[in-house]
Amino acid sequence: MPRIDLESIEQTNRTGYPAPFDAAVAGRWYRRLAPATGLNAIGASHVVLKPGAWSSQRHWHASEDELLVMLTGEAVLVEDEGRTLLRPGDICIWPAGVENGHHLINESDQECSFICVDGGKRTHGSYPDIDMMWDENQVYRHKDGTPY
Amino acid sequence: MPRIDLESIEQTNRTGYPAPFDAAVAGRWYRRLAPATGLNAIGASHVVLKPGAWSSQRHWHASEDELLVMLTGEAVLVEDEGRTLLRPGDICIWPAGVENGHHLINESDQECSFICVDGGKRTHGSYPDIDMMWDENQVYRHKDGTPY
Repeated sequence: MPRIDLESIEQTNRTGYPAPFDAAVAGRWYRRLAPATGLNAIGASHVVLKPGAWSSQRHWHASEDELLVMLTGEAVLVEDEGRTLLRPGDICIWPAGVENGHHLINESDQECSFICVDGGKRTHGSYPDIDMMWDENQVYRHKDGTPY
Repeated sequence: MPRIDLESIEQTNRTGYPAPFDAAVAGRWYRRLAPATGLNAIGASHVVLKPGAWSSQRHWHASEDELLVMLTGEAVLVEDEGRTLLRPGDICIWPAGVENGHHLINESDQECSFICVDGGKRTHGSYPDIDMMWDENQVYRHKDGTPY
């Protein structure tokens, strides 16, 4: 298979986040690369963040590894320890099970883009800043277990 | 975990290839990111190719997915169908089990660099252009099964 033709893969800003947590990712436009290319052991997304958009609510995964490569523009990585400015070529890695929430915010006035790759079993995870988690069936719940 | 500090991770041009297949990768300088960062479900390498260097002998994997993101410079991707010039931001994906050998050659007079991510079970694979394969124990063999 040759180089991926991104234009041939659907781009969407869909989200399953319940309101009001969906608003922050309205400017996140992504392409899921795995179903389009036959990947099974890893997942991959190409993501464009419009100015102001978040990559996700700040989150961690119990059993999935994540790796991100910045492609264009700038974004701020937010984690427990604070903020890190990311530029093209920067690489971020979040091993499964480390309960340190992370996400990117495009605070610039230009689009930015990145690739995110994940692997491992899809189980649960959580959002440290808000009353939300997801369970092993990928269902969003309040932290007391009540579904959204 | 914040952005990866590549300089803190050992860079090497080691290879297990037997002669004469090792010569083509002498100018391949890589950093293994997974052991340094705690990744388990996926593997990842940051690779620099000096002018003339190959990323590997042309190969395919029976059961590992691979994804590559070009970071800097240019390289030529060689596959069964022919040659594709890769530039920064280009993404290549090779799903497990597709017996289409692939590798990159730096035909330019500048260094190039890329990230390669893999996931899935490590079993066997083969090199279509030479009398070499590897088995489920990652041992290099002639195609008649004789070990190197």
